[in-house]
Amino acid sequence: MLKVGIVGGTGYTGVELIRLLAGHPFASLEVITSRGEAGTPVDQYFPNLRGKVDLAFTEPDNQVLKGCDIVFFATPNGIAMRQVPELLDSGVRVVDLAADFRLKDTATWKHWYGEDHACPEILAEAVYGLPELNREAIRTARLVANPGCYPTAVQLGFLPLVSRGLVDTQRLVADAKSGVSGAGRGAKVANLLCEVTESFKAYGASGHRHLPEIKQGLSGVAGHAVGLTFVPHLVPMIRGIEATLYAEITEETDFQALFESFYADEPFVDVMPFGSLPETRTVKGTNVCRIALHRQPESRHLVIVSVIDNLVKGAAGQAVHNMNLMAGLPETAGLDSIAILP
Amino acid sequence: MLKVGIVGGTGYTGVELIRLLAGHPFASLEVITSRGEAGTPVDQYFPNLRGKVDLAFTEPDNQVLKGCDIVFFATPNGIAMRQVPELLDSGVRVVDLAADFRLKDTATWKHWYGEDHACPEILAEAVYGLPELNREAIRTARLVANPGCYPTAVQLGFLPLVSRGLVDTQRLVADAKSGVSGAGRGAKVANLLCEVTESFKAYGASGHRHLPEIKQGLSGVAGHAVGLTFVPHLVPMIRGIEATLYAEITEETDFQALFESFYADEPFVDVMPFGSLPETRTVKGTNVCRIALHRQPESRHLVIVSVIDNLVKGAAGQAVHNMNLMAGLPETAGLDSIAILP
Amino acid sequence: MLKVGIVGGTGYTGVELIRLLAGHPFASLEVITSRGEAGTPVDQYFPNLRGKVDLAFTEPDNQVLKGCDIVFFATPNGIAMRQVPELLDSGVRVVDLAADFRLKDTATWKHWYGEDHACPEILAEAVYGLPELNREAIRTARLVANPGCYPTAVQLGFLPLVSRGLVDTQRLVADAKSGVSGAGRGAKVANLLCEVTESFKAYGASGHRHLPEIKQGLSGVAGHAVGLTFVPHLVPMIRGIEATLYAEITEETDFQALFESFYADEPFVDVMPFGSLPETRTVKGTNVCRIALHRQPESRHLVIVSVIDNLVKGAAGQAVHNMNLMAGLPETAGLDSIAILP
Amino acid sequence: MLKVGIVGGTGYTGVELIRLLAGHPFASLEVITSRGEAGTPVDQYFPNLRGKVDLAFTEPDNQVLKGCDIVFFATPNGIAMRQVPELLDSGVRVVDLAADFRLKDTATWKHWYGEDHACPEILAEAVYGLPELNREAIRTARLVANPGCYPTAVQLGFLPLVSRGLVDTQRLVADAKSGVSGAGRGAKVANLLCEVTESFKAYGASGHRHLPEIKQGLSGVAGHAVGLTFVPHLVPMIRGIEATLYAEITEETDFQALFESFYADEPFVDVMPFGSLPETRTVKGTNVCRIALHRQPESRHLVIVSVIDNLVKGAAGQAVHNMNLMAGLPETAGLDSIAILP
Repeated sequence: MLKVGIVGGTGYTGVELIRLLAGHPFASLEVITSRGEAGTPVDQYFPNLRGKVDLAFTEPDNQVLKGCDIVFFATPNGIAMRQVPELLDSGVRVVDLAADFRLKDTATWKHWYGEDHACPEILAEAVYGLPELNREAIRTARLVANPGCYPTAVQLGFLPLVSRGLVDTQRLVADAKSGVSGAGRGAKVANLLCEVTESFKAYGASGHRHLPEIKQGLSGVAGHAVGLTFVPHLVPMIRGIEATLYAEITEETDFQALFESFYADEPFVDVMPFGSLPETRTVKGTNVCRIALHRQPESRHLVIVSVIDNLVKGAAGQAVHNMNLMAGLPETAGLDSIAILP
Repeated sequence: MLKVGIVGGTGYTGVELIRLLAGHPFASLEVITSRGEAGTPVDQYFPNLRGKVDLAFTEPDNQVLKGCDIVFFATPNGIAMRQVPELLDSGVRVVDLAADFRLKDTATWKHWYGEDHACPEILAEAVYGLPELNREAIRTARLVANPGCYPTAVQLGFLPLVSRGLVDTQRLVADAKSGVSGAGRGAKVANLLCEVTESFKAYGASGHRHLPEIKQGLSGVAGHAVGLTFVPHLVPMIRGIEATLYAEITEETDFQALFESFYADEPFVDVMPFGSLPETRTVKGTNVCRIALHRQPESRHLVIVSVIDNLVKGAAGQAVHNMNLMAGLPETAGLDSIAILP
Repeated sequence: MLKVGIVGGTGYTGVELIRLLAGHPFASLEVITSRGEAGTPVDQYFPNLRGKVDLAFTEPDNQVLKGCDIVFFATPNGIAMRQVPELLDSGVRVVDLAADFRLKDTATWKHWYGEDHACPEILAEAVYGLPELNREAIRTARLVANPGCYPTAVQLGFLPLVSRGLVDTQRLVADAKSGVSGAGRGAKVANLLCEVTESFKAYGASGHRHLPEIKQGLSGVAGHAVGLTFVPHLVPMIRGIEATLYAEITEETDFQALFESFYADEPFVDVMPFGSLPETRTVKGTNVCRIALHRQPESRHLVIVSVIDNLVKGAAGQAVHNMNLMAGLPETAGLDSIAILP
Repeated sequence: MLKVGIVGGTGYTGVELIRLLAGHPFASLEVITSRGEAGTPVDQYFPNLRGKVDLAFTEPDNQVLKGCDIVFFATPNGIAMRQVPELLDSGVRVVDLAADFRLKDTATWKHWYGEDHACPEILAEAVYGLPELNREAIRTARLVANPGCYPTAVQLGFLPLVSRGLVDTQRLVADAKSGVSGAGRGAKVANLLCEVTESFKAYGASGHRHLPEIKQGLSGVAGHAVGLTFVPHLVPMIRGIEATLYAEITEETDFQALFESFYADEPFVDVMPFGSLPETRTVKGTNVCRIALHRQPESRHLVIVSVIDNLVKGAAGQAVHNMNLMAGLPETAGLDSIAILP
């Protein structure tokens, strides 16, 4: 059994990691840290885990974490970059679910996250953990930067097009919508049920931290800087991201066939029949990204619809997928449940 | 008091009309029809109206309706075009909340609505009831075609730009989201709570009936055919439409000042400060459209966010606004309530 | 115009008071205080009020408040009892929406609210502001203690029975359910959308602050101490309280006729036909309490179902009703809107 | 592998059975019937099953079903009792998730379900499939009547008390609340999102079909007819039942110890610490019933709170549990997933 640890286990990403790892056939949860809840039994804090997890939260302690094979950071941005180097030095492999190692350019990182990067030398070796893009590098990585939720949904929708150069990469539009769990478990008025249910709004419409991450990924694939307008929105529900993507076609092809072949071997990307309407509920709790293509009469755009569960394929599930790759396990191990419907 | 009738009072548009007209200072509800519920007291069918409305539903009967000054049709598409001519002939003025008189081109109408138009000669005189666009014509109209919900939100967001020719009208993108009440009150599995809550999806992504309506309106303002890609989405909430609009800027100007001056005299369009994030809940139950503008770094797009209540500004409220104009009443009469929050 | 002030305008009770008073025909909002938001325009903080309210929040200042005829306290428990005496001395009349003046017994108050009462001498004169019980005393009161939300729904359901002595007052059961707005607008993890939506739970099942308030009210009517078991629950919605009440019948009568006659002259209690199923949505945003009675085969219980909007009849609306009574205004002034449906 | 069939696979109980059985380690789904959708691939109808289920719906055909070891009926009431006898005759064992075989008294059945029972002789042998009550009989049963959702939650809460005779069995009160999925997947206006979300109501308050089922079960345990008042309510969420139970204590004991020992060996009943507040979300998608006890000051009642997932422990999960018992499989096989939170 792979010995795994979780740093920061009281947030939504943390509890989702716990759920997935508690049911994983080849991994054993050894330690779950929380500064605020050290000493509290995990299943008292999250009663859905009663009878499933025996651990109590502990103070984060690198000495203990060094006993793990792989450590997940489910901490706020800016924590992992200070704690990870020591772990790597002692041979522990790390998957960071925060943003600390996602942006390669430290100036860009500072611009969007408001402080200097604490370990730029390690940033260079971090592998961006989108398996569909970087599978081989992930297998051998010491440090994986788990992608953001929006970047996962948006990049998977644009990748086949941008990599083949079939659309105008200066005019990409990504209109994305997320459930409220994407905002985390912090005690904020803005995320109270009474503030967000029965309402819908755009946010970050003048610029969002995931914009540079998406552009970095797509630009790398395109071989040049892409132009993207990205607007996220808040949906009155717990889980799910839907991204509706607009790309101007510059070269016609059988786009449906392209997407199907591009993702033919991917266990977690499901290209639906042309004209399908993916619902976020069909991926809830699972690591699947469902994609469908549309054309409108007289329109120059290809419309791509991409849905994921922000806490699974957009966070904890993708992290477990990365762990499976790093450890040479079957890719779908622990990730084969079926979405509950309704 | 203006004598008003409602044809088709059991749907969501109907009950919203009843609510607004029951509280209107200058209108008197004389008749509310329903084939299926004739004889049922209105406040038994809709208990929120207990103590507020004394009428019972009646069979639709033009003889009775002819006693009204204005008749609203809150019927499914294809009903009004068969019943309206006789009413007009007898001097009754009509506001149709369905789609029967919205599209000027009968071939387009047939394409999207699946049958020949029943009274093309009357279609020609119908005034498209977007007061911000056609105020003067509405005042004297015999027949007003009340706009669709999406077309209201989208057109109000694009109008100042298209009318001034400041954006690329061949590349417009409208990503719109609606609460479930937009789908009506019919007994359909697809709109059960268990099918739509805690989920999000695009629909009509390959073409939606409101696409030609929006294009007709914007093309009329632009003076040429515009190119638009329009994708509607279903939000797990009752009311509200949010449209995020993407327009490529072809000529720079002070867009905020433009919007503020364009709508300065409009009682129901509220241009928020630049960079604001309108929430649909702030217009719930009211006839207001709130708009805000955004720019993203390195983006060529102006992003316009527009929110309305689909059942009020997108249907019944706009219909009452049209009635106020037709009858020479104060425009805000019966439409000045404050959105409930939370 | 009656000059009114609100102390504590940033919570849910506060914003609801602002909404109701901004639309009140005989009241003028003069001052709205908030320590935390002093200086912020009210309609910037609550955008639903844009164009409707011109005030900015100010620091709470008794000198300014003394210029009002009536001051509402929409503050946390324990604030009003320290600030009210000075206002009363200067002739201002007060409606307190918190719990400071609801319980007549200071020992009971201390037990449930955790501190000594700050002005027991004034507590004695406070009138419990349930108009259906204390209408005449309210008219002349200097200080009205606005009832809690649950106590309003529960007492109105039991009152006719307890006052006539027709049920076993030692075996009353009140199973009540509230929307999340009842928990206030504080930044608490427990009230995040992701914590409460798509879930249901009892809370306060071992004892809740509203239990002694309900027992005080019913015991006063009964003429002896009643026995009551009261369990509140949290419903995944914003507004609304439903109370299902179980009373063992000790003397048969025509209960429907009893309820109808008991509330015949009440403008805000609507006794529905026997066997009706009141929905909270039918009272949303309104000051109405809807009640219906049920009997089950072989059961010794009369089942009473009572619904209110916790923020209106359960808080701000009842406070305005009390103001109307205190000022000799028509009881329904500012309180005659129709619930939005759907 | 156990060969299993599902009759009626397009409802909510059906799709939940499919989900559970598709992931079951010892069962193989052989046939899923639907009159209306015969020929449609199951994963086209329910896209959450894409990649997980290869079958298409077929016409219900006893000849095909006879090839199964166990057949589940997830049909409307009144279907199974006509089709089951032939299957039993050919050696197939049956679990009926409808109400056809739950009530032993045919007169009571006719009263509540409106028609004569079609096979009273088989009704007599049917075993009521509440494993905590009838485990041994279930193991050898040919025909298991899977309990209703409310009866499961209510009986498990009352069982330890009634079986020991510690409470007044003539004064039981069960106030139960269910998510909307309990109403099924039929196309009914009453269950549209716009009709039920953001609202709460009692229903069946004058008598509900689950009342005689609960009374039959508890009376059997008590050894005499119990008196029960039962009011179900509709919660604006998809899944979950919460039952708050009120029992007058006639003999004091350590109730917490009683419940813990009563359910000590039960894999699917979790007695939480005294005073806990079970949330329905902690059992979502799982077969667990969580129970907690409460006492209020001066109250003669023991308050029992019981939560289940109505589609799992209240339907499909309990059916699979019954199948596991009938087939001699481990009781928790296929039923050990962890509830997703949030």
